[in-house]
Amino acid sequence: MAATDTTPVSVTPRQVRPRLIDLGPILQVVGLLLSTLGCAMMVPAIVDLALGSGDWIVFVSSSLVTLFIGVSMWATSRGADPRLSVRQAFILTTISWVALALFGSFPLYWSEIDLSFTDAFFESMSGLTTTGSTVIVGLDLAPPGLLLWRGILQWLGGLGIIVMAIAVLPMLQVGGMQLFKVEAFDTSEKILPRATQISGNLTLLYVVFTALCIIAYDLAGMQFLDAVVHGMTTIATGGYSTHDASIGYYESVPIEIISVIFMIAGSLPFILYLKMIAGNPRALALDMQVRVFLVTLVILVLMAAGSNVMLNDATPAEALRHSLFNMTSTMTGTGYSSTDHNAWGQFSIGIFFVAMFVGGCAGSTSCGIKIFRLQVVFENVRQHLKRILYPNGIFPKLYNGKTLSDSVVAAVMTFLFLYFVSVIVLAALLSMTGLDPLTAFSGAATAISNVGPGAGPIIGPAGTFASLSDTAKWLLAFGMLLGRLELLTVLVMFMPSFWRR
Amino acid sequence: MAATDTTPVSVTPRQVRPRLIDLGPILQVVGLLLSTLGCAMMVPAIVDLALGSGDWIVFVSSSLVTLFIGVSMWATSRGADPRLSVRQAFILTTISWVALALFGSFPLYWSEIDLSFTDAFFESMSGLTTTGSTVIVGLDLAPPGLLLWRGILQWLGGLGIIVMAIAVLPMLQVGGMQLFKVEAFDTSEKILPRATQISGNLTLLYVVFTALCIIAYDLAGMQFLDAVVHGMTTIATGGYSTHDASIGYYESVPIEIISVIFMIAGSLPFILYLKMIAGNPRALALDMQVRVFLVTLVILVLMAAGSNVMLNDATPAEALRHSLFNMTSTMTGTGYSSTDHNAWGQFSIGIFFVAMFVGGCAGSTSCGIKIFRLQVVFENVRQHLKRILYPNGIFPKLYNGKTLSDSVVAAVMTFLFLYFVSVIVLAALLSMTGLDPLTAFSGAATAISNVGPGAGPIIGPAGTFASLSDTAKWLLAFGMLLGRLELLTVLVMFMPSFWRR
Repeated sequence: MAATDTTPVSVTPRQVRPRLIDLGPILQVVGLLLSTLGCAMMVPAIVDLALGSGDWIVFVSSSLVTLFIGVSMWATSRGADPRLSVRQAFILTTISWVALALFGSFPLYWSEIDLSFTDAFFESMSGLTTTGSTVIVGLDLAPPGLLLWRGILQWLGGLGIIVMAIAVLPMLQVGGMQLFKVEAFDTSEKILPRATQISGNLTLLYVVFTALCIIAYDLAGMQFLDAVVHGMTTIATGGYSTHDASIGYYESVPIEIISVIFMIAGSLPFILYLKMIAGNPRALALDMQVRVFLVTLVILVLMAAGSNVMLNDATPAEALRHSLFNMTSTMTGTGYSSTDHNAWGQFSIGIFFVAMFVGGCAGSTSCGIKIFRLQVVFENVRQHLKRILYPNGIFPKLYNGKTLSDSVVAAVMTFLFLYFVSVIVLAALLSMTGLDPLTAFSGAATAISNVGPGAGPIIGPAGTFASLSDTAKWLLAFGMLLGRLELLTVLVMFMPSFWRR
Repeated sequence: MAATDTTPVSVTPRQVRPRLIDLGPILQVVGLLLSTLGCAMMVPAIVDLALGSGDWIVFVSSSLVTLFIGVSMWATSRGADPRLSVRQAFILTTISWVALALFGSFPLYWSEIDLSFTDAFFESMSGLTTTGSTVIVGLDLAPPGLLLWRGILQWLGGLGIIVMAIAVLPMLQVGGMQLFKVEAFDTSEKILPRATQISGNLTLLYVVFTALCIIAYDLAGMQFLDAVVHGMTTIATGGYSTHDASIGYYESVPIEIISVIFMIAGSLPFILYLKMIAGNPRALALDMQVRVFLVTLVILVLMAAGSNVMLNDATPAEALRHSLFNMTSTMTGTGYSSTDHNAWGQFSIGIFFVAMFVGGCAGSTSCGIKIFRLQVVFENVRQHLKRILYPNGIFPKLYNGKTLSDSVVAAVMTFLFLYFVSVIVLAALLSMTGLDPLTAFSGAATAISNVGPGAGPIIGPAGTFASLSDTAKWLLAFGMLLGRLELLTVLVMFMPSFWRR
């Protein structure tokens, strides 16, 4: 055990091991990330200053505090061994997200809209994890810098998750993500330069998509600031809006269609876009995960629209329009709404519930169980039933034409089990705070799946999370972190042996 | 594929294969089972005749019809090849339960209490699967023969499942039940004599337990007929009562304690009792499944009692008494109630929900996911987390001190996944019939887990299933069958390749 204990993700085992867990490289990366966050805070400061909102001072102070802490951490840990052990990688990943959410909450806490610290942290975590659940009522009157900051948090969170899904999670073998190990990372020698290059390309692509989305929104009639915020939160499948009525505020079909296109764009595997650009134009069209995602989306849209037509006498065109927008928003984990789809009846609530769990593709900004896991599970169940029927037969399991190893299947099944258990445990804890079962259960699901709105009158598409107790908000914020980091990255640290030598 | 296709469960491959699936042996066994059921119907006939209820004629006619069909089936298929293929075994298992539920519903349909055919079939399926959900209001005034028949259905169902769990399911490798392959069955030569002997011993043991329970109830003050019915439905963890208020009618602590003891006795692996008698007195005490079952039960009882004390100002003694009885009843899948525990608050409803899913031990009369599966899953998750932490380590998975094979783990994980999916799909279908989410979801869970009452005002401990639509009742009856036959036995027949050559 002790021999495997120190195996680093990257190169050779270290000779010197001064402490149980060397925090040097962790501090260094977290310091760097906080410094970036601190710089990003200057953007809303400038906007507030230009538009005459007094909140600019809040962003400048937050920025200075964050920069000071970030640069200090980075400076004191300079020269740390850049190679991470598996343990360090887990700690780094979790600490980074918590630290960014914490510092990201400062401008919200200090701003003129007067949030409690719990509310500010909830809003910041909800932003960074691209969940989009909000505790703020009165967005239409909120200062522009604050609206922009919520958008920036989601945008950064979306970028963070794409890079993490390609560079970190496959190596940690979390929930079957080893399926998406990029071959370039296999040769550990060049791991850092290659990771930097791919991350750079992904960032560039992400910026281009965001810019296209902003321009499209602007052309469709949104005000520029609205277009910028919505552009950032659409591609990040985050769902923060600048209006309490969300995208429904605009009552505009073109805006809804633009939104649907970019929510879907954000839910596809970003690495496939890079492959397309690199000379494989059919990479996206031939990928089974992408196909299954789109087919599932179409089926769910038609089911929700159909039930709305049958139960509520909605016209087919209206039903299809709202179903397309709200279902895409739910399944991709964005969380915009154009209407209160909770009013479409029980069956429809059920379909939206299922969509919440499904999620998008691996390596995208969306969350949830993710299509590839459902494909792996479906293949496993199919072959399992065959094996029961033909006990001596041999049935290889396939994914995208390649053989699925038993360890990937086990990892995916374990992930799925933990997903359901996490939702159930979180729902039970939420119900202990006095919430009714529908609110508790949909709240747990929407947090862990990083969707945004839940179901029911309180936290449904027409409600907010403002009225929940502080305990419920902290529980939900933890659920968002858990879901965003694919559960195991966080849960592994609850094992006693994680902290043992 | 064609080579493994004909592999029989027992001995050598057959040479002649006249039809796609030879129904001969299936008809023979079903005929035998129906004849037994027909004979059993004479018992309530005699009781009704002795006590002067006009319903005796109903039982005599039902008995004659059932006997006629049963004997005919048996007679026309005499001389059929007694060796079953895997396919035939699956079909036989499912058809037996459906046929018994169908014929068992006749006395209910024709009786003076005037049930629709849907209601009669629901009640019969609920009885035979030891679920205990009822559509009958006014049990206190119902004819004695009918009350006895409901008890007999559950008693036969309980016996059927114990024999099936030891003699059939392990061979079909359903949901990891191969863990409980009795060694005696490994040598296929002596399979029938040994199976007959073990089944005989189990039946004897079951009769002894039932008799003890009836005597205890009688001594504690129950009327004799009540004692007989409750004795049969307690050991079967079925839950049919002779009173609308269930065991709560008696307001008697001794009766509740007797009930708790025999519900637990019915939820332990019956094969371990045989081992104890055969000279291994500590077989039960040393079994990890039994220990985990008891510890889990104690924890859930204390949690529900604690939340009742904290939220509702119940006295600790009263809270503990009701929690012990109702939690044991729920976790073992019996479904008696002594009070409306739905009134204890949201958290309590949540704990009872969890208990519903947990269930008892494998090889008992109880249903649900079952303790051993949770142990396997827990062991799998534990070793999986370790493997993430130490990618090069080797972590054998253990159950009761023996190594768990990957195929058992995969079977259990697949079972668990299908369990959740079945509950969700059934809940969705139920909600389409117009039920609210709590009723739909708890109805689906209580049916598939064979518990009895659901949650909420309609089907909760204080309600009945009478007011549901016919569609909902058929769906729930299917759910009970699915749960009782451990899902896969039924689901495998939905595979197109099951019906292909």
